[in-house]
Amino acid sequence: MHHASDILLTLFIVFVAAQIGGEIAQRLKLPGVVGEIAAGCVVGPSMLGWIMPDQVAAGTPLDVLAEIGVVLLLFSVGLETRLEDLKRVGKVAFLVGVLGVLVPFAMGGMWAHGSGFDWSRSLFIAAAFVATSAGITARVLQELGALQRKESKVILGAAVIDDILAMLLLGVVVSLQGGEGVDLFHLGAVLLSAIGFIAVIGVGGARVMRWNSSWLDKPQNPQSALAIVLALCLGLAYVSTLFGLAAIIGAFLAGMIASETRQQHTLEKQTQPLLSLLTPFFFVITGSKIDLHQLANAEAGLMLLIVTAIAIASKLIGGFLGALSLGRRGATIVGFGMVPRGEVGVVIASLGLTAGVFTDQIYAIIVAMSLLTAMVTPPVLAWLLRRGGTAEQTADEPASH
Amino acid sequence: MHHASDILLTLFIVFVAAQIGGEIAQRLKLPGVVGEIAAGCVVGPSMLGWIMPDQVAAGTPLDVLAEIGVVLLLFSVGLETRLEDLKRVGKVAFLVGVLGVLVPFAMGGMWAHGSGFDWSRSLFIAAAFVATSAGITARVLQELGALQRKESKVILGAAVIDDILAMLLLGVVVSLQGGEGVDLFHLGAVLLSAIGFIAVIGVGGARVMRWNSSWLDKPQNPQSALAIVLALCLGLAYVSTLFGLAAIIGAFLAGMIASETRQQHTLEKQTQPLLSLLTPFFFVITGSKIDLHQLANAEAGLMLLIVTAIAIASKLIGGFLGALSLGRRGATIVGFGMVPRGEVGVVIASLGLTAGVFTDQIYAIIVAMSLLTAMVTPPVLAWLLRRGGTAEQTADEPASH
Repeated sequence: MHHASDILLTLFIVFVAAQIGGEIAQRLKLPGVVGEIAAGCVVGPSMLGWIMPDQVAAGTPLDVLAEIGVVLLLFSVGLETRLEDLKRVGKVAFLVGVLGVLVPFAMGGMWAHGSGFDWSRSLFIAAAFVATSAGITARVLQELGALQRKESKVILGAAVIDDILAMLLLGVVVSLQGGEGVDLFHLGAVLLSAIGFIAVIGVGGARVMRWNSSWLDKPQNPQSALAIVLALCLGLAYVSTLFGLAAIIGAFLAGMIASETRQQHTLEKQTQPLLSLLTPFFFVITGSKIDLHQLANAEAGLMLLIVTAIAIASKLIGGFLGALSLGRRGATIVGFGMVPRGEVGVVIASLGLTAGVFTDQIYAIIVAMSLLTAMVTPPVLAWLLRRGGTAEQTADEPASH
Repeated sequence: MHHASDILLTLFIVFVAAQIGGEIAQRLKLPGVVGEIAAGCVVGPSMLGWIMPDQVAAGTPLDVLAEIGVVLLLFSVGLETRLEDLKRVGKVAFLVGVLGVLVPFAMGGMWAHGSGFDWSRSLFIAAAFVATSAGITARVLQELGALQRKESKVILGAAVIDDILAMLLLGVVVSLQGGEGVDLFHLGAVLLSAIGFIAVIGVGGARVMRWNSSWLDKPQNPQSALAIVLALCLGLAYVSTLFGLAAIIGAFLAGMIASETRQQHTLEKQTQPLLSLLTPFFFVITGSKIDLHQLANAEAGLMLLIVTAIAIASKLIGGFLGALSLGRRGATIVGFGMVPRGEVGVVIASLGLTAGVFTDQIYAIIVAMSLLTAMVTPPVLAWLLRRGGTAEQTADEPASH
């Protein structure tokens, strides 16, 4: 009867660490998510060593809980997002998505080649500069009640575009690395199927729900609508991985579809306890992957600083240029919103390591960069959003810093 | 970016199977939990083979989700249970707990010895007849809105006593098996510490909360009380395993403590979505462990029937005798409420298998018996509770069948 003992202790540690970290962050006027990531860093190998890397490796229970946590988070963000609003910012979001991929890819590639890597390796490293992790930004926007702002819609729309492009880019880089040529026809098919999936599910699903959602209710069970949309969320999260997209894209679409139902308000309320229980796992575990010991030597530390600076600057520039039509302040918010790489950068780095493309050092640096960007963004974003409380009105005037 | 793909599919399958199974069961006027267990059997190795045993072994993500599910379930049952009510039925619950352990242990041991096992093996097998799995009964009682009935309080109280005694018995049997003598002093210490834990936490915790629970509220965060009691739930679930008790005992205590707070009603509502998402994992996975192929030969099938009949009859007799003061109908409900062995029997059987005490066949039969009792109980219990709708009033009159 003891087999469950260890994992229960770990769950308890992660959950309590998140609460304490979140509480401290809020007293320091920082977003709670910063505290949760920092708490992960404290209980992780850097300091207390209560959560070790093998406990959070891919496929472990904690990894799966973290995945469910971020899937539910993006689902709940989708629940607060109307398709109409996304369409309205479609053009800006597209520009932000495209430039937010191209600028980091170019700058990352140039840095890598300048540091002595051959072009095929450099492009792989560059790919790790690309993919935005929407979870962290989404959480900050949600915490500050800013999801209805125009900048937030742009960021969410751009995150979807970003994910499609990053997937394509990774496909190209991996086949270049394998010495194969790039099959443009195949690439086009992948692109079209991903876009088709998003369009059919997003637009079609939203239309079905707007047309009739009374079938979701069952009089004898107040939880039935929730169960159905949760099934939809898990299902679309899975299907989107089949199209090469991140699971959170499918979860976001599921939430967006559900936001068109007349149960939307109830669903939002019912999702809150799920987020309370499960999202801390995502953020604490993200934080626990930061190993400060790796930065203990001067060379690695310096390299990390440079890589992180490039990662932040390139995404900021790309996002800023793409969103210039929102005014300087709005564009800055959008740019910073695209900065976090989070777990996506880590996944690409792992791919590079197993493929033998990355050395241990460059792997460690890419991972640390991904997590540092995740760590740095929330306070900056919160600060920008709070002081830019009137950005919606002043969106077309240039703002001074 | 694909590592999460397989597990998302599995989560989707389990969750959807639970919804479909639950829906069918309810249309057949059966408790939803029957449908969820049956759905697990369908997706498990017996039929579709979508969920295989290695995916639900101890420590896998699905196993951990199932554990979290049953922990939350007993937490929510605790939330609907007042310490005062348990105290009021204390004497009956104690009798039910003790007789519900002794009768199955005696009958199980006699059957095993009669079937040709030596005494030390027979006692081990007998131990697998003992432990009640409170999860299944609790779910049926909750589904039927029967948690406030006197019989339900007796069952819940008895489940706690049952768990303490089963733990002691298992300790004795394991040391006998190891050829060591039974250290009565050690056993007494284990017993006292378990009782002490329950008394201190249950009575002390309830008193603290009744005295003052306003500190649970934070004006800026409506979820803060939930987060604190969930931390309490995970923490006590863990600590109770340290005392040799099942994790669900700690979770139940945490819920009972939380039921004394003035946030009790909000907490109950907030817990519902958590149960919707997570308890299906427990029941579907329980069902997926039933492998019907093992019953394909006549000898094993017959043996299983006998073992299951003894398991049901012995628990029913023990519980019935213990609860006779509730009248015949009430005692029958209590007796059936104690019948499910569920995962606890499985755990003991696994212990026996790894220790080399059990053959593969007796292991398979004990596992199947544990799950069959879990499967048979809900419909019978639901039927008894529905027709005995007036049992509370007629509790002292003898009822005819």
